This record gives sequence, structure tokens and C-alpha cells, in this order.
Amino acid sequence: MVEQLGLIGCGLIGGSFSLALKKAKLVKRVVGYSKSPSTTERAKQLGAIDVAAPSALLAVSGADLVLIAVPVSASEATFKAIRHGISDGTLVMDVGSTKGDVIEAARRGLQEQFGCFVPAHPIAGKEVSGIEHAEAGLFKGRQVVLTPVKATRRSLVQTATRTWTAVGADVIQMTHEDHDSAFAAVSHLPHLIAFAFINGIAGQENGDRFLRLAGPGFRDFSRIAASDPAVWRDILLANREQVLAQARSFREALESLELMVATGDAQGLENAIESARRVRAQWQSGGATAAD
Amino acid sequence: MVEQLGLIGCGLIGGSFSLALKKAKLVKRVVGYSKSPSTTERAKQLGAIDVAAPSALLAVSGADLVLIAVPVSASEATFKAIRHGISDGTLVMDVGSTKGDVIEAARRGLQEQFGCFVPAHPIAGKEVSGIEHAEAGLFKGRQVVLTPVKATRRSLVQTATRTWTAVGADVIQMTHEDHDSAFAAVSHLPHLIAFAFINGIAGQENGDRFLRLAGPGFRDFSRIAASDPAVWRDILLANREQVLAQARSFREALESLELMVATGDAQGLENAIESARRVRAQWQSGGATAAD
Repeated sequence: MVEQLGLIGCGLIGGSFSLALKKAKLVKRVVGYSKSPSTTERAKQLGAIDVAAPSALLAVSGADLVLIAVPVSASEATFKAIRHGISDGTLVMDVGSTKGDVIEAARRGLQEQFGCFVPAHPIAGKEVSGIEHAEAGLFKGRQVVLTPVKATRRSLVQTATRTWTAVGADVIQMTHEDHDSAFAAVSHLPHLIAFAFINGIAGQENGDRFLRLAGPGFRDFSRIAASDPAVWRDILLANREQVLAQARSFREALESLELMVATGDAQGLENAIESARRVRAQWQSGGATAAD
Repeated sequence: MVEQLGLIGCGLIGGSFSLALKKAKLVKRVVGYSKSPSTTERAKQLGAIDVAAPSALLAVSGADLVLIAVPVSASEATFKAIRHGISDGTLVMDVGSTKGDVIEAARRGLQEQFGCFVPAHPIAGKEVSGIEHAEAGLFKGRQVVLTPVKATRRSLVQTATRTWTAVGADVIQMTHEDHDSAFAAVSHLPHLIAFAFINGIAGQENGDRFLRLAGPGFRDFSRIAASDPAVWRDILLANREQVLAQARSFREALESLELMVATGDAQGLENAIESARRVRAQWQSGGATAAD
């Protein structure tokens, strides 16, 4: 049972986490802080938080669990702001899509309290953001990746695991390096490609006319190109080395296909497409509902 | 009213076209031919055709409407096979995703009957293929692109327009060059990218582990990578010049984003993502149901 959750950032993920804990009757009191007072007010109206704190520090004071659900670029400032409100037994987690950079931000920001920080990435989300879309069931059947480091307290990793499991998630552990490579490949790169794909068409003289002819294949393929620019700017920059490595690997595969098309290598092309088809047809997300 | 439809290729598209005409009570008799006798038999059982013909030539003999719904690579052989069964008033249409190459195949195959051919591309389909998935409503609210050339009989273009309209489609006309550029951009290129994307990950040592972490964004983005290899080999090769031109335009846009990531150009990156986001968020397919 959590006595007090200190929630920094009352958006879709933070709000859903709080609602999930409340629904499971696992938290007594939620004190929330958001940069925008109207967001905090809305979170209170929606029952996601019980008390609105005037600062991040006051939101974490007395909390035994702290969830930082802010844009990745605001991580370090947030860790610095709450450092003096953290006591030895407090579990501090984030929800960022990149882990290496957030760990460094926590090391610098939390200093002697760095061991309280358990880096977490719930693989959940929607195309919409904001507290209005928060829901208690958001993490049900989803994967949550924890990437503890050497300094991370083992007992807090166990508490983190129990907490996410209690809201319905499947918890897995890996190194932050593995995490950042994997998500560069399966999430950050597809976003980069989708942005480039749309810009490549829109920049052409007939681009608008072309787009009006697009059908369901285009619709699904390009859906992620409508994602939030500030969020994705941050993610791509925070994980830039892994993203660029994955982009190189992709460009090699693309150039290989282009060569087969250019030279009319029908058999090579069919084999390459068949390989892709087989991998994609067999794919199932690790999360039980992620493939829905 | 069509007295006799000669259907060459009894798959998803051909079968659906026949069922749609039958449902609208616009056809008296459908004579079908498929390379595989078991397919023709199945089409008969499902009511898509009334009579199974032992050859393509016999299927079109006496038909006032002929629909060729075979893989693009089989176009020329099919046109050659039916040439002597075509009379002056017969409307011949195809359903291919590329138009320039099919027009050339028709010119060579139909010879003096080339004016009977109205090139058609219904923008409809499913991730599944085969007569089992055929349905009368497949073309409802979908776009059908006609790309007549100078030699095409105007009266037959009108008949083609009336026929597709009668099964619920929105008919548009454009040159085959415009068609092939547009579909290279919004359909063929995304497939090429999706195949390369999957192969780029699957070729990595940790590729399998990476894929198990993928979520809903990956799922939608990569769905088209599971498409039929023989069909897409043919399409990419048939439209190779336009596909390669679109791939170049895409690679330039991608390299521009990669440069911003590499140099940490946060503002440039955010602007570029915002451009893509705006275009994609405003996008609506021309087809009424295509954006469902």
C-alpha cells in the first residue's frame, strides 16, 4: 500500500498511473504537481489527484512513491527540484521513452539520492495526450521495462515491480543500453521514417494531389507521423546515437531493395520481400493487448 | 445492363466485382476463367460466376464486358490469349495497381482491339486475398482511377464510368503517368520502406529481441510489410522508374532529418516534425470509407 503518491506531471501517463493505483485501492493519497495550474485543477476534478501542490518539491514531500511523468527534456530540472524532498525509502520512477539520458539526468539531479531512482518505461500510450484521456486500465496487459543500474536499490526495484504488476502490467528488466537500442529500432526509427516519408511527398509539386489518392495502407503506415513534435524532437535527440545507428541499418536495407528494383532482379526482390513478410506475419507484441 | 461478363482471374477483386454487379442486378451471366480449376470451381460455388470456362478465350467469347483481374505480370499473356474473342463493342478493363506497363502490354497483346481497353485501378483491397474474401460491397465508397489513352474509345470510357459508379465507386480520370507517379509515392514507396524496415531489424543480432518489445505504433506502421511477395515484386518492377524517383525523394528527406538529429538542431527538427504532423493530421483519403 502506498501512503502517498507524489505525481509530477498530470498528463495521460501520470494521470492513468494514479487512477490505476486508486482503482486497485493501493494508494491512500495522491499529491500532484503540473507546470500548468489548470492541468492540476483538471486532474483534481477528474479524481486523478487528491491535492494540488504549488511546487514539485511540495508534491514529493512525505511521499513514499514518486512518479515523474514529464517530457524527457524536463527530467533533470525535475530531479533537481525534488531532491531535498526525497528520503532514503522513497521510490522514484520516471516513464520516459529513453533511459540512458534520463539515468544521467537523475544521477546529476538526485545526487546522493540517486539510488532511490528506478528507471521505468511503460510501453503504453495513445495518439492523444492530456489528463482528459487518462484511464485506469491504460497499463493492463502492457509491458513495463525497468532499467536499474548498479547504484539502484534492489528493494526499490522489487517495490517498482510489484506496483506495476498490481496495475496489470508485465514487468521486464534489461540494461538501459539494450532498452535504448531496441526502442531506437522498433519505435524511434519508424517515427523518423514516417516524418521523412510525409515530408518527402509534401515537398513535391504534386504532393497534395498524390495524398488525396492514398488509401488504407498509407493511413496505417503514416499514422505515427501525426505524433507530438516536441515529444519526438526530445526522444530523437535524447537517443540520437542509437537512432542514427538504426537509420543507417535501415538505409542499407532500403538501398539493397532499390538496387534489385533498378536492375530488375525479380528473384532477389521476391526473396527479400518474402523475408520481411514472414517476420512481420509471425510478429506478436510481447504485450497481451498490444497486438489488438 | 451487361449481357455477359467475361471474368479472367477469380480472386478477391475479380470475384468482388462480379458479386457487386450481380447484387446490383446489372449482369445476366458471368463466365469465369482462372489458371487454377479449383479457384474457378470455388468461385462458382460462391455464386461469383455462373459458368466456368476452360480457357481465357472461351471466357470472353460473346462477352460485352471483360474484366482482367490477374497479377500484373500475367497481363500481356492474358491480352494475347483473349484478343480473338474481343469484338468492337466489347469493353475490356483491368484492375492493376500500375498503369503504364499494363497499357503497353494491352497495346502489344490486343493489337487492333487496343481501343476496347479502358485501364482501371480500383483502390480497394484487403490484407487477405482469394475468392473466399470476395464481397459485393468491396468498391463502395472507394476510388476507381481510369487512365484512358488517345486510342481508347470514348464511349467505352463512359460505359466503364457508369459500371464502376453502379457498384458504389467514385470514378476519377487521370493520365497513366500521373497515376503511376502518385501511387509510387503513396503506395509503392511505403511498401518498399516497410519491407526494408523489417529486414533492417531482422538482420541484426538482437533483432528478434527488439521486435518482441514493439508496440501499437510498430504494428500499424509495419502492417503492409506482410503483403504478398509476388504481387509486390511485380508492382515494384512494373513501376520501377517512379518508385526509384520517390525513394530518392524520401531518402533526401530522411537524410535531412538525420543531419538535424546528428547536429542536435532541435528547432529544425521540431519544425520538420511539425510540418509532417500537420500534413498527416489534415489528411483525408479521397474515398469516403478509406479513412475509416
